[in-house]
Amino acid sequence: MAVGEPRISLDELRLAARNHALPLEALRYPITPTGLHYLLIHYDIPLVDEETYRLEIGGLVSSPLSLSLDDLRGLPAIEVASTMECAGNGRALIEPAVVSQPWVQEAVGTASWRGAVLADVLGLAGISARATDVVFTGWDHGFEGESEQDYERGLPLEEVRRPEVVLAYAMNGAPLLPQHGFPLRMVVPGWYGMTNVKWLRSITVTDAPFEGYYHASSYRVRTSEDDPGEPVSRMLPRSLMIPPGDPEYMTRERRLQAGPCAIAGRAWSGQGAITGVDFSIDGAETWRAAERERDVDSDWAWQRWTIDWDATPGTYELCCRARDDAGNEQPVKPTWNLGGYVNNAIQRVPVTVV
Amino acid sequence: MAVGEPRISLDELRLAARNHALPLEALRYPITPTGLHYLLIHYDIPLVDEETYRLEIGGLVSSPLSLSLDDLRGLPAIEVASTMECAGNGRALIEPAVVSQPWVQEAVGTASWRGAVLADVLGLAGISARATDVVFTGWDHGFEGESEQDYERGLPLEEVRRPEVVLAYAMNGAPLLPQHGFPLRMVVPGWYGMTNVKWLRSITVTDAPFEGYYHASSYRVRTSEDDPGEPVSRMLPRSLMIPPGDPEYMTRERRLQAGPCAIAGRAWSGQGAITGVDFSIDGAETWRAAERERDVDSDWAWQRWTIDWDATPGTYELCCRARDDAGNEQPVKPTWNLGGYVNNAIQRVPVTVV
Repeated sequence: MAVGEPRISLDELRLAARNHALPLEALRYPITPTGLHYLLIHYDIPLVDEETYRLEIGGLVSSPLSLSLDDLRGLPAIEVASTMECAGNGRALIEPAVVSQPWVQEAVGTASWRGAVLADVLGLAGISARATDVVFTGWDHGFEGESEQDYERGLPLEEVRRPEVVLAYAMNGAPLLPQHGFPLRMVVPGWYGMTNVKWLRSITVTDAPFEGYYHASSYRVRTSEDDPGEPVSRMLPRSLMIPPGDPEYMTRERRLQAGPCAIAGRAWSGQGAITGVDFSIDGAETWRAAERERDVDSDWAWQRWTIDWDATPGTYELCCRARDDAGNEQPVKPTWNLGGYVNNAIQRVPVTVV
Repeated sequence: MAVGEPRISLDELRLAARNHALPLEALRYPITPTGLHYLLIHYDIPLVDEETYRLEIGGLVSSPLSLSLDDLRGLPAIEVASTMECAGNGRALIEPAVVSQPWVQEAVGTASWRGAVLADVLGLAGISARATDVVFTGWDHGFEGESEQDYERGLPLEEVRRPEVVLAYAMNGAPLLPQHGFPLRMVVPGWYGMTNVKWLRSITVTDAPFEGYYHASSYRVRTSEDDPGEPVSRMLPRSLMIPPGDPEYMTRERRLQAGPCAIAGRAWSGQGAITGVDFSIDGAETWRAAERERDVDSDWAWQRWTIDWDATPGTYELCCRARDDAGNEQPVKPTWNLGGYVNNAIQRVPVTVV
């Protein structure tokens, strides 16, 4: 049993203990079972009272609104299955190390979200002709260094108007759990998780792009402190496999019996449709194309992929890579950036076949 | 923002990403919301088919049984709210470091479990007069170093016969989730988590204490490799507080507005009834007694505790400690042991009041 060198601090571990990932074997489920979907909670889970809850809608609108949950539940509802991934997924594998929530590669999940269409709700308030952007504020509150923050994100109007952007009050057929944004959250299919504001408190229509902390300082791909960088937006393609065989408890190293082995996993992209998934048994030296199957009825959810492998005794490094129709393909190695964002480098699963 | 030195390896992090803890603010809930209860899964979550599932009961019984889920659901049911904690809780705070699942102090949760009484089920099989112990085998399977393992634990008959030991098929009013042992698990109130075998496959009645890996090599409090040590059994007392104020994202350091502050938390013990909880604002130099309240109707669930604090500007180290009627009190510092088990040293929460 070889356990590696220390790499993660106790502070990072405290975050990792709160913000859990998807156990990779749970990729077997089309819809992630409750409690296994990844979580990233910046501050504390706020306690929001359903009875007194109001969503406040203001700014550049003709009729500011204050909506109860019953008001929102009374509007036409849609249900959208959507794969969501943290923008920091893969961070712990980047060199040199980036200090933040230390995700390995499993900060993902797929849920079926039910709620009112955001565009419908904003239509009730009446968006001004001058409006260009919308700011979403959550009840979660804390500090970034010395700077006090409400969690807030903005979106340009063209994203807000998409018919599949949901103000969700239900997840997988049940009311939202506290950790997933009870009583109301945003779901913006295709975007990394930071856009999907939880514990939604207010919506403010504006005439300029939002420049708050979580846009200006965080969630940007920057190569140095001087680089303003580009904002993180839609998910790059990624594929993950269910590690075959059985794990060693501590190292998670896999051992597999020789013979035919059905490898399976999932692939997704928020940039476009997945057009291919490849599989390698030799650490990304050679590749074979996997089969793909759509087993969640949604353009915004991951696809299943499978490939047969006739495993013979030896040691292997299994890899998978996905590409999309926007021309993105997963790289073999991560590209470093200051915040450790959008590292969609391929998964590597060492396996010993006996 | 001061982030500490590296301490945890990537292998330990992989475990921490799978096996999540309770976010401390979730101590506010008497029954832990679904998905926030701690999880420790030794190998992979097995996929068990509810339709073909059978619980096999054999060994020193007069009538070996093979029970379906419907058979089990047809027996008289009990519902028991029980607080469960991992035996390794607190491990990451022990010096020198112990390598295993790196829990900080939050590997706990309380759920309401429903199922058949284990003693009733064994009564149907008819326990031999020679029997002294019972072995419980799960479907989870993997390796410890080179040694292949089914997850298995034993219990002496006097524990098995307790009327509150459940073969649980429901948690908080819903079927078990895959990660909590679907379709059937044991719940042994008062014991550390390792006893509560998930994905239960078989029960074997024997005439000798079980000596498998998870008794002989693991889950023992040992001071050296030569020390056979004592097996881990019932939970020592522990108290935890909901950290007051607001957190800094990365360090989780807390900032609090001066003024009256209602501190609250929870305390439990599997060794006896909680008889007191104390609170300190000066790093365990001086203590005040907290109020206690039973807000879960169960002898096996944690209690709520509260205390008022008139917070004035300054820096503080908040602590709490619990004691039980078996004469145990939480120590101020951890005691090292080889596996990093049963570290119930007090929680310390640094807070800046502004």
